[in-house]
Amino acid sequence: MFQKRTDLALEVHELHGNESGITVQELKKGGFNVTVAEVSNGKGEEVSGKRAGKYITVEMGKIWQKDKDVFERVAKLISEEIQSLLPEKDGCVLVAGLGNEEITPDSLGPRVVKKLLVTRHIQAIDRELFVDAGFGCVAALSPGVLGQTGIESSEIIKSVCNSVRPKCVIVIDSLASRRLNRLASTVQISDVGISPGSGVSNRRPELDESTLGAPVISIGVPTVVDAATLAYDLLEEHSGKEDEGFAEVIERVLVGSGKDMFVTPKENDVIARETAKLLACAINMAVHRMEIKEINEFID
Amino acid sequence: MFQKRTDLALEVHELHGNESGITVQELKKGGFNVTVAEVSNGKGEEVSGKRAGKYITVEMGKIWQKDKDVFERVAKLISEEIQSLLPEKDGCVLVAGLGNEEITPDSLGPRVVKKLLVTRHIQAIDRELFVDAGFGCVAALSPGVLGQTGIESSEIIKSVCNSVRPKCVIVIDSLASRRLNRLASTVQISDVGISPGSGVSNRRPELDESTLGAPVISIGVPTVVDAATLAYDLLEEHSGKEDEGFAEVIERVLVGSGKDMFVTPKENDVIARETAKLLACAINMAVHRMEIKEINEFID
Amino acid sequence: MFQKRTDLALEVHELHGNESGITVQELKKGGFNVTVAEVSNGKGEEVSGKRAGKYITVEMGKIWQKDKDVFERVAKLISEEIQSLLPEKDGCVLVAGLGNEEITPDSLGPRVVKKLLVTRHIQAIDRELFVDAGFGCVAALSPGVLGQTGIESSEIIKSVCNSVRPKCVIVIDSLASRRLNRLASTVQISDVGISPGSGVSNRRPELDESTLGAPVISIGVPTVVDAATLAYDLLEEHSGKEDEGFAEVIERVLVGSGKDMFVTPKENDVIARETAKLLACAINMAVHRMEIKEINEFID
Amino acid sequence: MFQKRTDLALEVHELHGNESGITVQELKKGGFNVTVAEVSNGKGEEVSGKRAGKYITVEMGKIWQKDKDVFERVAKLISEEIQSLLPEKDGCVLVAGLGNEEITPDSLGPRVVKKLLVTRHIQAIDRELFVDAGFGCVAALSPGVLGQTGIESSEIIKSVCNSVRPKCVIVIDSLASRRLNRLASTVQISDVGISPGSGVSNRRPELDESTLGAPVISIGVPTVVDAATLAYDLLEEHSGKEDEGFAEVIERVLVGSGKDMFVTPKENDVIARETAKLLACAINMAVHRMEIKEINEFID
Repeated sequence: MFQKRTDLALEVHELHGNESGITVQELKKGGFNVTVAEVSNGKGEEVSGKRAGKYITVEMGKIWQKDKDVFERVAKLISEEIQSLLPEKDGCVLVAGLGNEEITPDSLGPRVVKKLLVTRHIQAIDRELFVDAGFGCVAALSPGVLGQTGIESSEIIKSVCNSVRPKCVIVIDSLASRRLNRLASTVQISDVGISPGSGVSNRRPELDESTLGAPVISIGVPTVVDAATLAYDLLEEHSGKEDEGFAEVIERVLVGSGKDMFVTPKENDVIARETAKLLACAINMAVHRMEIKEINEFID
Repeated sequence: MFQKRTDLALEVHELHGNESGITVQELKKGGFNVTVAEVSNGKGEEVSGKRAGKYITVEMGKIWQKDKDVFERVAKLISEEIQSLLPEKDGCVLVAGLGNEEITPDSLGPRVVKKLLVTRHIQAIDRELFVDAGFGCVAALSPGVLGQTGIESSEIIKSVCNSVRPKCVIVIDSLASRRLNRLASTVQISDVGISPGSGVSNRRPELDESTLGAPVISIGVPTVVDAATLAYDLLEEHSGKEDEGFAEVIERVLVGSGKDMFVTPKENDVIARETAKLLACAINMAVHRMEIKEINEFID
Repeated sequence: MFQKRTDLALEVHELHGNESGITVQELKKGGFNVTVAEVSNGKGEEVSGKRAGKYITVEMGKIWQKDKDVFERVAKLISEEIQSLLPEKDGCVLVAGLGNEEITPDSLGPRVVKKLLVTRHIQAIDRELFVDAGFGCVAALSPGVLGQTGIESSEIIKSVCNSVRPKCVIVIDSLASRRLNRLASTVQISDVGISPGSGVSNRRPELDESTLGAPVISIGVPTVVDAATLAYDLLEEHSGKEDEGFAEVIERVLVGSGKDMFVTPKENDVIARETAKLLACAINMAVHRMEIKEINEFID
Repeated sequence: MFQKRTDLALEVHELHGNESGITVQELKKGGFNVTVAEVSNGKGEEVSGKRAGKYITVEMGKIWQKDKDVFERVAKLISEEIQSLLPEKDGCVLVAGLGNEEITPDSLGPRVVKKLLVTRHIQAIDRELFVDAGFGCVAALSPGVLGQTGIESSEIIKSVCNSVRPKCVIVIDSLASRRLNRLASTVQISDVGISPGSGVSNRRPELDESTLGAPVISIGVPTVVDAATLAYDLLEEHSGKEDEGFAEVIERVLVGSGKDMFVTPKENDVIARETAKLLACAINMAVHRMEIKEINEFID
């Protein structure tokens, strides 16, 4: 249960430096740091160990402690980045919220889905109302987790895509970060696809345009750090060198590999609630092409 | 939202009497009344206005007020009826829990899914453990409701069936009854398929063997009565005749057709909890072919 | 479980007409009908069968279908009515949310409590922050229902009042209405106290200034109609006269007194969510004396 | 939010060794290790830094992975230990479930409360039924957390005790452990009282016989480890000595004191569910003096 998924691209970049095949732009948008990393086919993938594509990271700080003005500016910024990746053509957007609602820091995906302005069925029932309101077409799904359904979430998403034939799939996920200070304070948006249940790896993502027949935008927020990752960083920082029998120490203290434990902030209920609100707001704005005030008319 | 689904076959029978093409057996099993109605192709369908197939109704009484012994006997009885409809061959059973978790009397399906012993993924991970434990293969899904997903629940179930290729699909649903005294006190099991979102009708069920590629067992418990239905019954009982301008009176008192209102017992939280437990228990026993005590080892 | 509480004062007025000892003002505020009924001591109580005090009813229509502008105007209006009943002096406001979270139409109280800007503890921890932000002092509690706690909710509220010593207690409750068209479309605010678990009656409210040591503002929204009440109205409307053996008919059709059944709209999940948001917003504005925009900065 | 409470007595003992004023018995009961530590007044308190009283620790292992037989034996064992601390006299037991339902590893208390066989109100309504069934008298309460209510949970419990006048108060809490391998695998039962919101300390417990007028049995299960605690242990284990500038390293890596982070197992949803079931079962058996099979008749 609760396998942590896809690490942050920004962190991969950190580990490998800026090399050929990887372009990194650091921008300031609306007062926030935005990093856009592009990994080229071939060379870029080889060097970075990441799939070719675009990785956008928005550093928003502790959004759950910020006032409404900051919240709205971040939502708008994220919304614009999502919009830049959305295909221009007609069709529906399918939003898939990965994760387990019963584990607070893994609940981001299902929470976002609950706050979306879903419209695909309205279009079918009352085309006129739909067009007048200026809605985009949105369907949404929380596929649950393997332990609850017996079915891989990627299998469910693929199946539903086969039927719904969306123009684009947006996948929301909680991420594991390498750094505590990233927790809940960055949002990563990418167009490279995603492998639910996997960590950082170069293997083909299970969910991408080739498997879903539609481009995939994945949106992730780091909500936990693996206990083992934290332990390594601590020991390295302390001893000033790399692995010196760290594995053994960690084995003794963490009782096993520590891969079954995670570290998370004590206020993770508030973080989950606020971050879900933020992402839902940004997606609603991007897909329905509305201002935040208009969106709020429809949404809880 | 919360469209009530498929009426009770038993009630259809009530309305039409026992005629050619319909066979009705009234049995006593384990101290409970069990009615098995079979509607034949052609004649039976025409007379009853119901699809050809088997309709089993178990009258269990107010199960949520009964002691553990009664609970276990009813669970076993329902389990046997389900088992009698399960294909003998190898393969997985997919359980789909229809309904809206946020409306208490519509929450039966999703509640049952949460209490199932799901095993399909264990089989994949650890074949040996799976075989040793004697598990059947079960996957489960709550497709949500149209207003939350923008996708018909039948569309989601069909899509997932295409991928999972189950040997059989069990669909759980809350039903609308015609009679208050049936509420939560009968369970209906049928092999004719189901149309989520429809009422009584003779049209082709959206979910049946022809659309899913696997036989469908639908299990329903009446949890509400339409306010309009109740109103008609009241006026008929009072005036001793059929419709005498009833529609107008109802229009005035129910403010509209009354189709948007339902009647339900005040203790419907307890009813939903206990009924979900009962059905989950019966399905677990049927599919894993275990005794109630063994099942309880694995289930909450 | 789920005993319906305190009927609507407006309806009592309806039943008895406008007589001496009862003053009824029908106002138009911000485009909404507001009825202010005042029952005098002695005569008024005798005539109306209701406790002396002020009963304010705001008719807001189907608020859950309205746009944001209407929502905000109703919230402001309710907020002002609450403010008019709040004592001017220093001290905290204790908000008590009555009802059972697990029964959708009874969940209003607990839902409101979850959306309040609670501040009493901040005052204690960081007086300066508290004063700078201009907060009022708010504590909040959902006492649960008798079947869950074994303790009357009024007993819990009284106990906590003894310790917290608030300047005022606001009690939120779901009400039973006599009329379907009132469901979720009126808000009643009163200063006469409340007896959780009781219906209309002239007996001393369990929760009022004399028992709590602080004035009580009760806020209620009708979310259900008793099935028996509805049945009487139907039969009366149809036969054009009062009770003609109605009780017997109802007994037969409703299986018992029908007191154990209620009628509620199918979309009661949306209604519960939106109404809770409305009342929480109004209370937050009234107690913290802030505009809706400021309040939204702090609240989900 | 989510302040971790009262460390484990067993761990305090570990730190200080077995000295005068502290008696430690290590027993084997039903195949499980049970440690009974008694801290005497004066000397024992001084040496241990813990309040005088009895500390019982049951080591049950990973109960959420065990079969039903182990579950029932552990439940019985815990039930007996609770029973040994219950006053023999007539009267009700008030169970208070501390913690925040929305943070998975802090949700133990409220989850236990939901699974109790609450009877205090039945006694009042139907004395005969109550006596015939052989029930004990139980009331239960989840006071919520400071951030939700603005009221200290101890203040709410004290207030309600003043009114309910129980013969004994059982307080359930999630604990912070010093050791990862203790997580969710030990249960500690104590009669010394408890200070919600505090850590290990010798100060007067806020909730004990002197403040509540009834003896207090506190039951805790460690569900998290502070990230800072874990970090110290790791560095100590690695460097083989005590604090060598650890604080600085931790400050850098944990970004602040690490007091705002906790470590918890990934399967903490399953752990919370199973542990709540275990404790509820044990309390139900102890208070109603029933066998596990009888209890199951009444409980979900």
